[in-house]
Amino acid sequence: MMDASTSRTADGFVFAPWAAGHLERVEQALSQWVTAEAPVGQTHGAPAALVQAMRYAVLDGGKRLRPLLVMGACEAVQGHAGAALRGACATELIHAYSLVHDDMPCMDNDVLRRGKPTVHVQFGEACALLAGDALQALAFELLTPEDAQVPVSVQAQLCRLLARAAGSAGMAGGQAIDLASVGQPLSEQQLRDMHQRKTGALLQGSVLMGAACGTTDPDQWRALSDFGSAIGLAFQVVDDILDVTADSATLGKTAGKDALADKPTYVSVLGLEPSRRYARDLLDAACTALAQARLAHPAPLRALAHMVVDRSN
Amino acid sequence: MMDASTSRTADGFVFAPWAAGHLERVEQALSQWVTAEAPVGQTHGAPAALVQAMRYAVLDGGKRLRPLLVMGACEAVQGHAGAALRGACATELIHAYSLVHDDMPCMDNDVLRRGKPTVHVQFGEACALLAGDALQALAFELLTPEDAQVPVSVQAQLCRLLARAAGSAGMAGGQAIDLASVGQPLSEQQLRDMHQRKTGALLQGSVLMGAACGTTDPDQWRALSDFGSAIGLAFQVVDDILDVTADSATLGKTAGKDALADKPTYVSVLGLEPSRRYARDLLDAACTALAQARLAHPAPLRALAHMVVDRSN
Repeated sequence: MMDASTSRTADGFVFAPWAAGHLERVEQALSQWVTAEAPVGQTHGAPAALVQAMRYAVLDGGKRLRPLLVMGACEAVQGHAGAALRGACATELIHAYSLVHDDMPCMDNDVLRRGKPTVHVQFGEACALLAGDALQALAFELLTPEDAQVPVSVQAQLCRLLARAAGSAGMAGGQAIDLASVGQPLSEQQLRDMHQRKTGALLQGSVLMGAACGTTDPDQWRALSDFGSAIGLAFQVVDDILDVTADSATLGKTAGKDALADKPTYVSVLGLEPSRRYARDLLDAACTALAQARLAHPAPLRALAHMVVDRSN
Repeated sequence: MMDASTSRTADGFVFAPWAAGHLERVEQALSQWVTAEAPVGQTHGAPAALVQAMRYAVLDGGKRLRPLLVMGACEAVQGHAGAALRGACATELIHAYSLVHDDMPCMDNDVLRRGKPTVHVQFGEACALLAGDALQALAFELLTPEDAQVPVSVQAQLCRLLARAAGSAGMAGGQAIDLASVGQPLSEQQLRDMHQRKTGALLQGSVLMGAACGTTDPDQWRALSDFGSAIGLAFQVVDDILDVTADSATLGKTAGKDALADKPTYVSVLGLEPSRRYARDLLDAACTALAQARLAHPAPLRALAHMVVDRSN
């Protein structure tokens, strides 16, 4: 990873400083938008206890892959940077809320996330439930600023893409299939369908949200959709590989829990080596799609695709 | 209620057929939009088990007060009927999701809702959690149709209003305060603050979403905002009254549970008769605001305000 992230590509792009710059902006924006408290003497702000749990769930943690995909795709189409920053934060809020709910006792019942106690362990189940709910609402609030600094057509399109990616045909649907699949033998196709929704939909959605900040060209749109689909699936294949090959300290979450929970994974369905080959094939497919998109600046997205497959946590 | 709902007002409006017509459209639209399954042979739809729980949570139940407020406010400003129907369904999806999550064991732990077992009793906790999450996402999906049958500026505005009403400064925030208030003595101001968020924000938001379908006039907007605020609070005051005066069969949910849970209510803070007077005062305030709004057709909203205060469940 160090090589890929610090070396210069043919078009002069270096990943590490690019990512660091964007991550700083995203982190600052998240900290500002997941607001600490109501202005003194006013009652229209959010209650402090809830906001505390929301901030705990969102800030200082995670790879921020989804925000980087939004930013990378926006730059690739030379889109509206302000819209992309809001889209980037919104995707991360949806991701964060899904982790909060996913960790709860009635779901995966996990106590460790990003090396910290999970939200319901720290704040109680009821607060975790509400914090997740409020984070989802906040995502859509971020996408619709009142001062029209983002064109309303882009606001509506970003809401549409995010709602679809997060909803019953996307992330929430994938989690429902995941729950129903414990102890069930799944075919590779069923496994792919589950992962494309559970993780893939929001990763692909992040790419498309970035694209929506700057292009309506159907060919570019299709190519970027294919790119997002390939890396979305690759992400989950690599996740399944890491679940059996990495330890909890490296992952920042409980390792081996899929196998323990008797959940079908790429490793259990295909085997370890075929899963690794599949991840490389998906990376190739992503790069091919990227090349077809005739983008102004494809290097960040290409680097992100490599990061998805080469990551160690 | 029968008198008010079937008698003709000075401007020739009769509430019962007006409400019945809108409720039929809302019910049909909800049934269509909370979709049953993926098209045969396709995998991009929602998984059947999740959709079943979502439909159970949404269809065939409830007063549909929020949808009627959206429709009434839209008619009052002679707004875009197609936008209002989407707004109406979206508010109901948010309301339905909040009930699903609110009933869960880690929150109110209620087993009866609208005379039926609650969603987690019927489908399990994990499915209830995901169904609520997916209903929230679906609300924003409904507000952002791709075919531009609703102007994008209205789409963005509806998302903005709904996200604020549902989020940490609105409904979810109110629920967090509610949770933290069990066994706590609250002042009347603290109680009002809690209720304005927990129930009031989405009821007021429904009025404003209807208004957003047809007006940007700041005076009308302010008057309708005041109207929504008054009936939003009145709704909760009446809810608190009914919790101690009605039985579970009439309510369709467990009666007396606030007192049992040692939750502060208007009845416990003000007493029963002062609470009844307060509800009438809020109704007067709502009607005054309505008169100031210079609306093309205020009768439906006026009838809805009366319904909020005079209801028996």
